[in-house]
Amino acid sequence: MSITPIPPLDRLQAATAVLAAKRRTGLAWADLGRAIDRSTEWTTAALLGQHPLTAEQAAALGSALELDAPVVEALELPPVRGAHVVDTSEPIVYRLQEMVQVYGRTISELVREEFGDGIVSAIDFEMDLRRVEDPKGDRVVITLNGKFLPYRSW
Amino acid sequence: MSITPIPPLDRLQAATAVLAAKRRTGLAWADLGRAIDRSTEWTTAALLGQHPLTAEQAAALGSALELDAPVVEALELPPVRGAHVVDTSEPIVYRLQEMVQVYGRTISELVREEFGDGIVSAIDFEMDLRRVEDPKGDRVVITLNGKFLPYRSW
Amino acid sequence: MSITPIPPLDRLQAATAVLAAKRRTGLAWADLGRAIDRSTEWTTAALLGQHPLTAEQAAALGSALELDAPVVEALELPPVRGAHVVDTSEPIVYRLQEMVQVYGRTISELVREEFGDGIVSAIDFEMDLRRVEDPKGDRVVITLNGKFLPYRSW
Amino acid sequence: MSITPIPPLDRLQAATAVLAAKRRTGLAWADLGRAIDRSTEWTTAALLGQHPLTAEQAAALGSALELDAPVVEALELPPVRGAHVVDTSEPIVYRLQEMVQVYGRTISELVREEFGDGIVSAIDFEMDLRRVEDPKGDRVVITLNGKFLPYRSW
Amino acid sequence: MSITPIPPLDRLQAATAVLAAKRRTGLAWADLGRAIDRSTEWTTAALLGQHPLTAEQAAALGSALELDAPVVEALELPPVRGAHVVDTSEPIVYRLQEMVQVYGRTISELVREEFGDGIVSAIDFEMDLRRVEDPKGDRVVITLNGKFLPYRSW
Amino acid sequence: MSITPIPPLDRLQAATAVLAAKRRTGLAWADLGRAIDRSTEWTTAALLGQHPLTAEQAAALGSALELDAPVVEALELPPVRGAHVVDTSEPIVYRLQEMVQVYGRTISELVREEFGDGIVSAIDFEMDLRRVEDPKGDRVVITLNGKFLPYRSW
Amino acid sequence: MSITPIPPLDRLQAATAVLAAKRRTGLAWADLGRAIDRSTEWTTAALLGQHPLTAEQAAALGSALELDAPVVEALELPPVRGAHVVDTSEPIVYRLQEMVQVYGRTISELVREEFGDGIVSAIDFEMDLRRVEDPKGDRVVITLNGKFLPYRSW
Amino acid sequence: MSITPIPPLDRLQAATAVLAAKRRTGLAWADLGRAIDRSTEWTTAALLGQHPLTAEQAAALGSALELDAPVVEALELPPVRGAHVVDTSEPIVYRLQEMVQVYGRTISELVREEFGDGIVSAIDFEMDLRRVEDPKGDRVVITLNGKFLPYRSW
Amino acid sequence: MSITPIPPLDRLQAATAVLAAKRRTGLAWADLGRAIDRSTEWTTAALLGQHPLTAEQAAALGSALELDAPVVEALELPPVRGAHVVDTSEPIVYRLQEMVQVYGRTISELVREEFGDGIVSAIDFEMDLRRVEDPKGDRVVITLNGKFLPYRSW
Amino acid sequence: MSITPIPPLDRLQAATAVLAAKRRTGLAWADLGRAIDRSTEWTTAALLGQHPLTAEQAAALGSALELDAPVVEALELPPVRGAHVVDTSEPIVYRLQEMVQVYGRTISELVREEFGDGIVSAIDFEMDLRRVEDPKGDRVVITLNGKFLPYRSW
Repeated sequence: MSITPIPPLDRLQAATAVLAAKRRTGLAWADLGRAIDRSTEWTTAALLGQHPLTAEQAAALGSALELDAPVVEALELPPVRGAHVVDTSEPIVYRLQEMVQVYGRTISELVREEFGDGIVSAIDFEMDLRRVEDPKGDRVVITLNGKFLPYRSW
Repeated sequence: MSITPIPPLDRLQAATAVLAAKRRTGLAWADLGRAIDRSTEWTTAALLGQHPLTAEQAAALGSALELDAPVVEALELPPVRGAHVVDTSEPIVYRLQEMVQVYGRTISELVREEFGDGIVSAIDFEMDLRRVEDPKGDRVVITLNGKFLPYRSW
Repeated sequence: MSITPIPPLDRLQAATAVLAAKRRTGLAWADLGRAIDRSTEWTTAALLGQHPLTAEQAAALGSALELDAPVVEALELPPVRGAHVVDTSEPIVYRLQEMVQVYGRTISELVREEFGDGIVSAIDFEMDLRRVEDPKGDRVVITLNGKFLPYRSW
Repeated sequence: MSITPIPPLDRLQAATAVLAAKRRTGLAWADLGRAIDRSTEWTTAALLGQHPLTAEQAAALGSALELDAPVVEALELPPVRGAHVVDTSEPIVYRLQEMVQVYGRTISELVREEFGDGIVSAIDFEMDLRRVEDPKGDRVVITLNGKFLPYRSW
Repeated sequence: MSITPIPPLDRLQAATAVLAAKRRTGLAWADLGRAIDRSTEWTTAALLGQHPLTAEQAAALGSALELDAPVVEALELPPVRGAHVVDTSEPIVYRLQEMVQVYGRTISELVREEFGDGIVSAIDFEMDLRRVEDPKGDRVVITLNGKFLPYRSW
Repeated sequence: MSITPIPPLDRLQAATAVLAAKRRTGLAWADLGRAIDRSTEWTTAALLGQHPLTAEQAAALGSALELDAPVVEALELPPVRGAHVVDTSEPIVYRLQEMVQVYGRTISELVREEFGDGIVSAIDFEMDLRRVEDPKGDRVVITLNGKFLPYRSW
Repeated sequence: MSITPIPPLDRLQAATAVLAAKRRTGLAWADLGRAIDRSTEWTTAALLGQHPLTAEQAAALGSALELDAPVVEALELPPVRGAHVVDTSEPIVYRLQEMVQVYGRTISELVREEFGDGIVSAIDFEMDLRRVEDPKGDRVVITLNGKFLPYRSW
Repeated sequence: MSITPIPPLDRLQAATAVLAAKRRTGLAWADLGRAIDRSTEWTTAALLGQHPLTAEQAAALGSALELDAPVVEALELPPVRGAHVVDTSEPIVYRLQEMVQVYGRTISELVREEFGDGIVSAIDFEMDLRRVEDPKGDRVVITLNGKFLPYRSW
Repeated sequence: MSITPIPPLDRLQAATAVLAAKRRTGLAWADLGRAIDRSTEWTTAALLGQHPLTAEQAAALGSALELDAPVVEALELPPVRGAHVVDTSEPIVYRLQEMVQVYGRTISELVREEFGDGIVSAIDFEMDLRRVEDPKGDRVVITLNGKFLPYRSW
Repeated sequence: MSITPIPPLDRLQAATAVLAAKRRTGLAWADLGRAIDRSTEWTTAALLGQHPLTAEQAAALGSALELDAPVVEALELPPVRGAHVVDTSEPIVYRLQEMVQVYGRTISELVREEFGDGIVSAIDFEMDLRRVEDPKGDRVVITLNGKFLPYRSW
């Protein structure tokens, strides 16, 4: 029987350790995605605590990032999703928030017209971010791709 | 001197009138975009009150939608942007909100790694929504395209 | 061109009119469900403004409830969903809220163990409420039935 | 007289220790329910800190989960119920929240019609969660079963 | 078919009309309780919109208070309970709020010790307010009387 | 000059230590009230940190509960009252909260009618909780007894 | 039986009418205080809806301010106190708020030291505001005078 | 170069240490004011962290209160003002809050009438608290004295 | 005695009427400033309801903008300042808000270092906004000019 | 592999250490700006955690302030921006907040008139604070200089 039954690290602490290790090793998020054969975006979200990682994935990432065993172990914990994990006043996140504010009803109307009554899944969902060069200033292009789910009537 | 100095309609009331006229005329948002030679997305946002419309654009949309003169006039008012215009608990909008919650820090990290210290503009920005057919259920693909703006140091 | 472009009633006002008509006619929610061949629960939610009704459904309900034409027309408007539509401090709703508070993490854990990483859909969803007689006091049994949606990784 | 009068663990810390022990031992929630002859759902809620456990129940669960003595002792503390124990923005919990939002008034109306003025108890209450296989995707069926309590007039 | 399907008054407007009629007629709350053979406290709460009134009760109260027919009709509507009905910063209500703040945990502890795990019902509940003369200043004595409801385990 | 000028325990930590000692010693709240010749209710509130205790009272309670010296010393600190000390979503406290919500305006009206413009003191106040046996289920009867304080006009 | 049972004005609307009449008549608050033989401060608060006025006081003020009968009648209604009546972000009110923020704990400590455990009554209270000339800029001196109320122990 | 660059105590921790030392030494707030030749009120506020203290003042107070060197050093730090420093639900502070609520608009009106458009400074401000004996119960008299600052127009 | 004692327009409604009249007449804010010999910035703020206008100023502005008499009269009402007058989520206002968020502590530190303990007045204050041409994109330069006010000690 | 993978200090802790070192060394913010050849304002914001510092900048500042290696290392971490970093109730920051409240709509109107539909960038932005001597009391002049960004239409 161990003396301290509480695990030494949770997913958010593991994310902090991952960010420090990434700085130390000089690896890019794309390198980490390749290490587990997943997209850069999903891998970043997972390492920040938003998606589960299998023991194999955690081990591969731990090896790439030269993480201590407790961090690797913490990466195998369930994800910690929720509003407290992101600060919507952080300037980049706020711009996303403002896009939802300005275009949210537009998206609702266009989805309703094209698909009928339902939603865009945030679960059966994938996301992609890339740089598009532009002489007037390069652009960030974020693609949100979610399955349409119709409301069931019964 | 007129008797009622207060304009009969504001942008939000004009948006309600536009939605009613759209139902009555059976026009699609894409038809309205074509009427003013703008994208479907921008036109929808503008008619919902989020972007300014010139007198010519308001007249063309008023003609297509068979709007009354006071509604057309109200469409020429400045836009009314802000948090009170969208209800983030509306199910479609909430899924966008949850995407920001789950992927907001991921986007911050990827933008910082690729571009350095700065933000994705919500102003020098365009947005596109389209249906992608999929045998497992069609998908909604939303593209957010904003200029990267680096923080100035001085 | 009509003089008043704003529709006389919205979905929430239509719901108020429906409740008054229901009292006047003495019909039960189950009668209204039968009138459109849908479940009592879905029909109640739709008449309270949470689901769309087709022109045929609105006409059948308008006929059963002896509704005025503007109310019937308002029933065909899109639903108005969101946090402002329900008062979570209303005593019955609060008990539902407290059930989520007390058993929310339990449900998360049991879903994760049984199904893996994902959610219970509130969209591909149906709900059923019935009375179960009990000598110690009859019971309300509410069944929530939602499709499991696994998180996509990519 | 002991030197540290403050108990080493509270119910929330005990819940964290239980989750770690469950991962270590590979037991299922149903196994734990069987260990104390209670339902899986009640047992899960109790281990997460929402219900009291007797000394016997705590000992049986401690033995099954190979828990340290301080964790077993903490399981005998009174439950810690309240809004701070659950994060309503966690994606599964939010869907429950949205169900309350969309169907809360429907439930109020149906209860009032069927039972009269009163509430559905969240105390004289039991809950059941099970998987229902479905070729279009398995479903989570949650049954909420609460006694109807009529308002007293006096 | 009536021209105005929306009822002219709701319960809160009826309460305002009742307060005006009470001032006009000079009746006391106790007189109104006697008119329907209920306690003063329950009757006051009912007239303020917190409890349902039968057609007979509404008629008796309407006769005593010389209310118009639409007010009497509105008194028969279902009650409107919820946090928006009371302003907790109103000085008397705030003192009740502060009593809950100062003595809430005390009540929880004493109930748990005396009755075990459960709550004091706010539904199977009655309340009584009376003046107790005191040479140092008369006192308001409020008695809260609720059934103990034990948590069910299953 | 001492090395650690900050006291080792505050009133809330003392309350936690008191609850643990009460469990250990098996004393009832009434026993503790008798130990200092005060009511059970006041004593419970005081031990939970809501009222000041004299050095004599703290010593007597420390002796009864076999408390360490630092806990006894902390009991002599000023009380820590305020909204953060109680969680109004804890199920028992919430029922009190709901009673205030449902009957708050009723109490305001009855006080105004009986006493005139003023409040019920929460300071010159005493509270009493007792069990009343009832064949349909025992009842919790809480008596709130506060001095009426008239508003001064000047 | 009157046709409109709802009174035409409430206390807040009466306050608006009083402010307009005060501008029209050019009376000062002190004039109004003299008209009912009360202090300027109490009278101002009463006319703004925070204190009750007797029929005689309302008539005297109505005569001085040349108010319409419905406004005079509304002045006799019970006061409307609560947080919604004042906007704490209004610049003068905010400075009062900030004084509470900066000196609130100071006042608590000084009251406790001088008087013991209790509060400063906001009910058995009077307030006075006067100008004090000062060559460096005149000063506003506000005197808050409340009875000390000791906590009762029992 | 020191090993721990972070100072051991901040102003709030220093305030806690001061309160403990005051209890230990039995000094009154007035004694502390005399020790630095300032008013009791300003000195109390300063020791609670709301005003800056010079090195000389900190030393004199440290000597009077027999404070450790780290506490004296912390007293020289800049003040920590802001809403988080005071709990407005603490009963004494709440009464101040309620005074602002009930008399805030009155003060605004009286200041505007007497001085014109401007505010009462909370910076060029002093405050005084004293006991006034009264056979019906002693009174707390708090004098708020702030410079009137007129709005500049330009 | 007039029939409608409530003034037909308040400052916010007057501001709406001013914006409509400005559009109709094609005047610039600078034209309006010149009409009353005040700065463009102060005049804009005053017309939006944030500053008082004398009868002469209101008349001059009413003449320039061809306003109706009730609007001119409303411009003479006291200003309506407070948080509800501005929506901090409006995109321009939010950027100001974010500047305060990013640079607020910086400004506090620089003011403290340069001036000592005190604040920058928002009352003895003036503000100026101008365009500065820049080949990379013109710039908005906003100058905030407030008197330093030292905290008084006493 | 290191034993503690979590970095010992974050940007906010580094800011606390910087403030202590600045006090110890007696350096001014302007000295620190000169040490890295940047403005005083930008340097202050960066040291408080709002802007990134290069390794060279961190080393130069660390040398000037005689910082420990862990603090210097922490200064190289990414900035921590967001609403939690500033307390808007701190008196200086609140005045900035109030300026936004009073003049926010004015700035929106003037920007729209002069530049058209768009915003003032808070990213391509610089800020300057200086003392202006004035016989009536010196003034703080803060210049906010942001690029105008027009909304894109597409």
